[in-house]
Amino acid sequence: MLEFCPGAYFALGAHMGDNDWRVVLTDLDAQVVERLDVPIPAPTPAANLEALVQGVAEIRQRVPARQLLPAIGLGTRGLVDIRSGVIQSAHEVGWLDVPFRQMVEEALELPALVVNRGKLGALAEVRHRAAEGVTDLVYLSLGAGIGCGIVHDGALYVGANSSAGELAHSTVAPDGPLCPCGNYGCLQALAAGPAIANRARAQLRHGEPSVLRARAGNHPEHITAQDVVAAADEGDALAGRVIGETAGYLGIAIANLVNILNPQRVVLAGPIGLASRLLLERVQQETAQRAMAYPLSAVRITRSALGLDGGAIGAAALVLQQAIDLIFR
Amino acid sequence: MLEFCPGAYFALGAHMGDNDWRVVLTDLDAQVVERLDVPIPAPTPAANLEALVQGVAEIRQRVPARQLLPAIGLGTRGLVDIRSGVIQSAHEVGWLDVPFRQMVEEALELPALVVNRGKLGALAEVRHRAAEGVTDLVYLSLGAGIGCGIVHDGALYVGANSSAGELAHSTVAPDGPLCPCGNYGCLQALAAGPAIANRARAQLRHGEPSVLRARAGNHPEHITAQDVVAAADEGDALAGRVIGETAGYLGIAIANLVNILNPQRVVLAGPIGLASRLLLERVQQETAQRAMAYPLSAVRITRSALGLDGGAIGAAALVLQQAIDLIFR
Repeated sequence: MLEFCPGAYFALGAHMGDNDWRVVLTDLDAQVVERLDVPIPAPTPAANLEALVQGVAEIRQRVPARQLLPAIGLGTRGLVDIRSGVIQSAHEVGWLDVPFRQMVEEALELPALVVNRGKLGALAEVRHRAAEGVTDLVYLSLGAGIGCGIVHDGALYVGANSSAGELAHSTVAPDGPLCPCGNYGCLQALAAGPAIANRARAQLRHGEPSVLRARAGNHPEHITAQDVVAAADEGDALAGRVIGETAGYLGIAIANLVNILNPQRVVLAGPIGLASRLLLERVQQETAQRAMAYPLSAVRITRSALGLDGGAIGAAALVLQQAIDLIFR
Repeated sequence: MLEFCPGAYFALGAHMGDNDWRVVLTDLDAQVVERLDVPIPAPTPAANLEALVQGVAEIRQRVPARQLLPAIGLGTRGLVDIRSGVIQSAHEVGWLDVPFRQMVEEALELPALVVNRGKLGALAEVRHRAAEGVTDLVYLSLGAGIGCGIVHDGALYVGANSSAGELAHSTVAPDGPLCPCGNYGCLQALAAGPAIANRARAQLRHGEPSVLRARAGNHPEHITAQDVVAAADEGDALAGRVIGETAGYLGIAIANLVNILNPQRVVLAGPIGLASRLLLERVQQETAQRAMAYPLSAVRITRSALGLDGGAIGAAALVLQQAIDLIFR
């Protein structure tokens, strides 16, 4: 008699964060059994590779080699061509045509599966929420950039050349600031971490009291988006306004998604999306202000229950899926 | 030996236009063999039903009763709950909770399938373009309102409560005009027929020469969106600017769709979308100005080759699909 034993094999997945890799081992049930973070010394492909190799070498030692599925799943920044594993572009760090899969396969001597990190976050959510019957979901990762993934009928929405889900460059202010992508008023330019920090720095110039002032001193560059969301959640009025304005832009983009995709769930994740209860509430309000009532009635907007593991779990899930495909094909 | 004979049976489909029904009979290959238009005397559910009943009675006589598949497909305005056939809302005419399927079934004594007309337009496009391998497509119908349907992997994208594709109420100008849906700056309020006509009327007040002036006289309300697109295509500068501004708003919404859905094709249809070569060109330019280069490289923006038949063909295709399901189940 065959019995399902989740701990019989382990899958290796890694998520490229803005500043570090999260590397995980999951069991066959996509539950994390080991995790570690490795700092990325510089925003270059070579430095990312180096940090990944180090992290993989370390985490591999924690389980017997014969129990490790022989592949690695990777969630990276940028527009990734899933077939070739080439990162076509990642504007925020200036990458173009980076053959990341090939680089990883040569360095690790393991087959690699490379997918945009936002997509893998979305995949992880439905994997872990399948019991609740959620099959249509949009995942938004808010950090230094904005990642997004769409799951429809339980499967990743990939699109014609595997770039579906590029919400970061949705126009939410037609005459807004010029974005490195060449468009004006992109969501990422108005609602990601740098925009939140800049907005707080500008507000501080008006002289209003704020807990952020002590941190700013003569160097307002010290203020980070994390400082702002923390201050807002503690009731700081200035920080609260900054979060409110940020939520206004997010609400436009999310309401458009609710109207167009009619999902059951919108999940906020990433270091900023996970950090703030106030941001979630304001995003819920702003979305309700703009989305049509009927699709709005079908959707819940929540924070991810997977924390910062989401992308890495989704990456490991690619390996699990491939193993299942190989066994049952 | 069984041979496929497209003319063995006929499917009945109808598309609720802004002012008339288009009723068609198609063969088993979804090719139109009979069509007729029936004016809708008033924008009420009862008047729509009455016109439909009249059209169906007339077109049924054109083929032997035993060759007609015993059902009707309908593409209607509004947010339609596909399961119940209830039109949940159609803001532009003030309909709420109209049990249209039930009304039609009682009047025609035929099972009816009711789906939003934009969705059926989208379905018709892939049905007729299957040979070209298009499986991911967005369909935009531009008329008095803006309809939209999404096809993904060859299937209609329906969503959690069958309202996916509500592009009309996408925010394209956050501080734009108040829309009857309660949101500000909806695409429909800025780029559908009434907005095009109003914009031309406003421009005429500046005294600039235009072929539209003679038509306007002392009653600029005479000017229709159709007049404006016709004048623009003939080279009228004032009308051209109006179309350019309209294309600017459409370009924001379409670029967002290209980034998010990464489709192979965007199809413009409906009386205004089909009418103007200039509008198509300007929409292509504005979309290229805003969409990311990589997903943009995968998409073509074209006018529908099905003309005003699209929605009705899609409606008939529902009946064909049901017949196939019944035979092969």
